[in-house]
Amino acid sequence: MTERIDGHTILIGLMAYPIRHSMSPTMHNNAFAKLGLNYAYLAFEVTNDTLPQAIEAIRTLDMRGSNISMPNKQKVIPLLDQLDPAAEMVGAVNTIVNDAGKLTGYCTDGTGFMQSLKDENLDITGEKMVLVGAGGAGTAIAIQAALDGVKEIALFNRQDEFWNNAQRNVEVINEKTNCQATLHALEDQADLKAEIQDSAIYCDATSAGMNPLEDLTLVTNPDWFKSDMIVFDTVYAPRTTKLMTVAQKAGVKHVLNGLGMMLEQGAEAFKLWTGEPMPVDYIRDLLFDEH
Amino acid sequence: MTERIDGHTILIGLMAYPIRHSMSPTMHNNAFAKLGLNYAYLAFEVTNDTLPQAIEAIRTLDMRGSNISMPNKQKVIPLLDQLDPAAEMVGAVNTIVNDAGKLTGYCTDGTGFMQSLKDENLDITGEKMVLVGAGGAGTAIAIQAALDGVKEIALFNRQDEFWNNAQRNVEVINEKTNCQATLHALEDQADLKAEIQDSAIYCDATSAGMNPLEDLTLVTNPDWFKSDMIVFDTVYAPRTTKLMTVAQKAGVKHVLNGLGMMLEQGAEAFKLWTGEPMPVDYIRDLLFDEH
Repeated sequence: MTERIDGHTILIGLMAYPIRHSMSPTMHNNAFAKLGLNYAYLAFEVTNDTLPQAIEAIRTLDMRGSNISMPNKQKVIPLLDQLDPAAEMVGAVNTIVNDAGKLTGYCTDGTGFMQSLKDENLDITGEKMVLVGAGGAGTAIAIQAALDGVKEIALFNRQDEFWNNAQRNVEVINEKTNCQATLHALEDQADLKAEIQDSAIYCDATSAGMNPLEDLTLVTNPDWFKSDMIVFDTVYAPRTTKLMTVAQKAGVKHVLNGLGMMLEQGAEAFKLWTGEPMPVDYIRDLLFDEH
Repeated sequence: MTERIDGHTILIGLMAYPIRHSMSPTMHNNAFAKLGLNYAYLAFEVTNDTLPQAIEAIRTLDMRGSNISMPNKQKVIPLLDQLDPAAEMVGAVNTIVNDAGKLTGYCTDGTGFMQSLKDENLDITGEKMVLVGAGGAGTAIAIQAALDGVKEIALFNRQDEFWNNAQRNVEVINEKTNCQATLHALEDQADLKAEIQDSAIYCDATSAGMNPLEDLTLVTNPDWFKSDMIVFDTVYAPRTTKLMTVAQKAGVKHVLNGLGMMLEQGAEAFKLWTGEPMPVDYIRDLLFDEH
């Protein structure tokens, strides 16, 4: 059995900085190998400074595309030929597809979030969501949820550097979708509690709970949650965050970490590049040893 | 066992056109895997037109380097930061090494030729060689043999489009090495016969004998060869060329095809990129099923 890379192998990139510890190359290459698809997915350390030349390299080397991550998700937009409508509304791109030199930008974080709920047979269309955070993940989730039929989003954020973006997200949703979005200050704890108790899903899209903020959760009192709601933490390292233990204490039935979202955002990109569905369960079992 | 490519994998390229059927990616990736070296070697279709941007991509993506093949071996020179002295004398580059953005060009075809003789315990230093051909392979062989101590080279070429290059090769060797080179017209068969009979090695560096010129050999009469000389054909597809059968008929002991040279030019590049010797015997057994 020889190595699968040969003269016909097509390159797909991941352009970000820092990036060497990403699991994405391992995920995609194992999926290519499993399906016998002749691609190789490699990470490249690319900053805002080298991004224009790196995007040009996609065309020059006839790469099939690339993932884009921090700090390049917004800076990449003017370098592309066209944007998927959802990516345009999000204002960020995490996936580029190269069709014979024409580069299209997509954002699969939001579709990955929605798909990870479907994987658990959970449907939040027509429901109300409390969402905390208006950074990259929070913005993608808000826009895609609104596009996919979530009825109402109460968006909470600290009055910090992302507050303006939270405002912008609410305006975009109210203007361009049938979802009704409202903006709330995270500092108003009574408001947060009341909105949670009126919602079908609570989603934390901040870095609270993620290493090194492992001890942090924005909801500490189990009484704020109802057992029939969904509590979703976009963090997946650790697998069980402080927020999730609070939700479990409250008897919440559907408590999810961000692993499914991470896998499904990758699967969405995989599909865009190869036309094939990623073998998500196989990858989860192989690399993350859980289901 | 998961795929070996991860976020730390470093890219090495092969830039040429056409190139998809090259064995080099299979060779290098299997060698990386065998030694546990975290590189991936991919082929890219690069023409003279896209070569400048492709070379820039080596820097932008912090590739470790690249092989260069037709039609880019000469065109690449002005795009590099410096040349190895042998590459400068050859006037062609088949290997680029990237040291933190500084690109150095090497030509490993000639060192690969000399090493493939050493692999068979053959030493041609101090000897006389008849060499036919002044294209890429012929030029690299002539220059490296002269640099490595071959005493005399009788260089034969048709009076065709490579005649000027043959003249140039002879001049460079006589000017810059201790080897004495002479230029001969391949059309003069009596001269060719006489020079062969005065030499320790006859080397054909033309495409005669290679598919689709399988029936062609520039020496048809076994009587021209001596049994104690070396007959070397740079062709390796087919493994036994028409020239080699003529030499075998003459009872020549050391009849070699170009497979060893091909492997060793790759091994020289491998060493330049990784600092490690390529496991040549392992690769030959694995991919070419012969020794």
